[in-house]
Order: sequence, then structure tokens, then C-alpha cells
Amino acid sequence: MKLLEDKIATEGISVGTDILKVDMFLNHQVDVNLLDEMGKEFYRLFKDSGATKIVTIESSGIAIAVFTAKYFNLPALFAKKANHKNVGNEVYSAKCYSFTHGKEYTMNVSKKYLNPGDKVLIIDDFMAGGNACNALIDIINQAGAEVVGIGIAIEKGFQPGGKALRDKGYNVRSLAIIDSMNDGKISFRSDDC
Amino acid sequence: MKLLEDKIATEGISVGTDILKVDMFLNHQVDVNLLDEMGKEFYRLFKDSGATKIVTIESSGIAIAVFTAKYFNLPALFAKKANHKNVGNEVYSAKCYSFTHGKEYTMNVSKKYLNPGDKVLIIDDFMAGGNACNALIDIINQAGAEVVGIGIAIEKGFQPGGKALRDKGYNVRSLAIIDSMNDGKISFRSDDC
Repeated sequence: MKLLEDKIATEGISVGTDILKVDMFLNHQVDVNLLDEMGKEFYRLFKDSGATKIVTIESSGIAIAVFTAKYFNLPALFAKKANHKNVGNEVYSAKCYSFTHGKEYTMNVSKKYLNPGDKVLIIDDFMAGGNACNALIDIINQAGAEVVGIGIAIEKGFQPGGKALRDKGYNVRSLAIIDSMNDGKISFRSDDC
Repeated sequence: MKLLEDKIATEGISVGTDILKVDMFLNHQVDVNLLDEMGKEFYRLFKDSGATKIVTIESSGIAIAVFTAKYFNLPALFAKKANHKNVGNEVYSAKCYSFTHGKEYTMNVSKKYLNPGDKVLIIDDFMAGGNACNALIDIINQAGAEVVGIGIAIEKGFQPGGKALRDKGYNVRSLAIIDSMNDGKISFRSDDC
């Protein structure tokens, strides 16, 4: 998605060969017009997937997921990273190691909101090693629901998460795939899937 | 806002006289059409406030804040509840006790995204004692920015947060104010401001 690639190229800050900071428009301050366009693009990519629910992970996936859900006219659901009083005890859980936070956490989804027959479109802001996405897929499988697509805003193509999921047969579509970052230069993969 | 009050009355679950569960449409699973209408209503209420930025607190404020920001055509910013690598070290911070989680946490906002001259509209999902909102106001004051309005989805009118902020002169508008909950019966304040 050229709009997102241009935004990353002009405003994103790469540090070394692995860290990309996009907190100025994606995961701390949010450019809502860009995210709305991203939601529209995910709708274009997945409108024939048969999705019945949009699922993401708190907190930086939420903004993209709700704009996407608006285009689909579907409920959005976000996996919680801690056991909240307002989620209750009847949850599907999976453990996940977060490199951003440097620790393992437990991801939870109330059993009330994922059911057999649900066709889930996963939306998230980043894909690198794929840990968070795999934990969410585990939860969706526990519920007997089906993953019909995985939409990622920014994929680090030089890390194994996206390829491993595609090799397993998942329909992973990323709006921008970064092949390499070096000395502040960011190279995008030309065909974004 | 009748649409929200009706949703709370028909789907919300009150437990005892203090707990209201709205995880089926507001803070775990999200009814995006309702939240979009709430964003539109916040725009109607605050369109003359001169706001230059919409600020909320992760994670359950994010969905409402981004729909609101879309109507205002303004950036949304969310305060983080932990020190993220992708936020950096240059932050404004305030401590806040969360009754939902039963512990104190530190709220952070990057110094890059709040500046003197910013006119902030605070948006959040709940107001009870007002702890989270007061911590956010502290951060906004540290930045030398100004709070021009506070928009709350659901205010527990029987707790002191909203009244204390109005008494200090803040323009607090809540889309639904609950006066009491008892035996599953939820009573709304007739005039929602």
C-alpha cells in the first residue's frame, strides 16, 4: 500500500537493522485518516473471506482493527494482555513472549465472544517473529473457530513470522513488507503479498 | 445519548451496586457502529472547543478516541500504561491506581506529541473515581498543554470523579450517566451533562 510505504519512508525512524519506530502515526500517536484508509484496504483484500469477526491484540492493533471492522460492518474483538476483572474468568488463554516489552505475557479472550463457526480475520499492526499472531491463532483454535485471513500493517520481511504462517497455508496480507533496514534506509518488498 | 443508554440497559450486566460489565460492546468486543455514533456525538458536543488533539488512555479508550478523532480530523494520542521501547525515554509520566486491575501503574506520553499550545480533548470509556483522568490531566499540564474538554462514554454518577472535575471548571460531558445500579436495575440521570 503506497500510502503506508510513503508514510513509513518519510516519517518512520529505523534504528540499526531491526527497530522501526512508527509511534508518530501508528502506535502511540495515530493518524486516523491513514488508518481509515488501511481499514478500507483490508476490506478490499479480505472482503470475500467470509469473515464474521475482526480480532486483534491490545493495544496497538485496536485502532486499525476498529476501522477495518467498520468497513466490514462486523464486531471487533481484542485479546487482552492481562486478566481483567471486566473480562471474567471464563477465557481462552495463550502465552506469548513480547520482544517490545522483554517479557512473557498471557493473552486472554472471553469464551463468550469466540465460538465454533466464527470465521476470524486477524488484524495487527506489526508482524516480526509471529509470536503474538501464533498465540492468537492458538486461542482461535481453542474456541473451534477458523482463521480466514491475517492482515498486517507492517511486516518485517527479514524476520520469519510471515513466511512461516504463509507456509502453513494462512492467507497473510501485509500492507507494507520491509525487506531490510540499514543506516536509516528502508527497503520495501515490491509485491506486497 | 439514548442509543448508548439503550445498549447499556439491554446488554450491560450490573453486578451489585458498583460493577457494570459492558465487555460485549465497549471494552472487549466492540460494536463499531455504536462507537462511530459515539464519536459523532462527541464531535457535536465539543466541535467548538478548539481542540487540536484527541487524547485517551490505552487500551479501552482507543476505539472511541479514534472514531472521535476521525470526525474532528485530528490526530489521536494514547497514553501508555507501561514504558514501551517504541515510546522512548523522553516521556511525561503520572502514577495512577487502577481499581479494575487492583494495582498502581505509570501512565506515559512521549514528550514529542504533547506541546504548549496543544488544546486537548480527553476521551475515555469510563469515569468513576476519576483517577485515570486526573493522571492524564497531570501529564497534559506537565506538557504546558490545555484541557479543553473531557468526553466520557459511561460515567458512574454515584462516584465522585465527574463532579470533582466539573467543580474544578472542566467541561465534562458523559454520553450516559448512571445514577444507581441495584439488583440488575440501572438508573440513568435524565440530563446527560
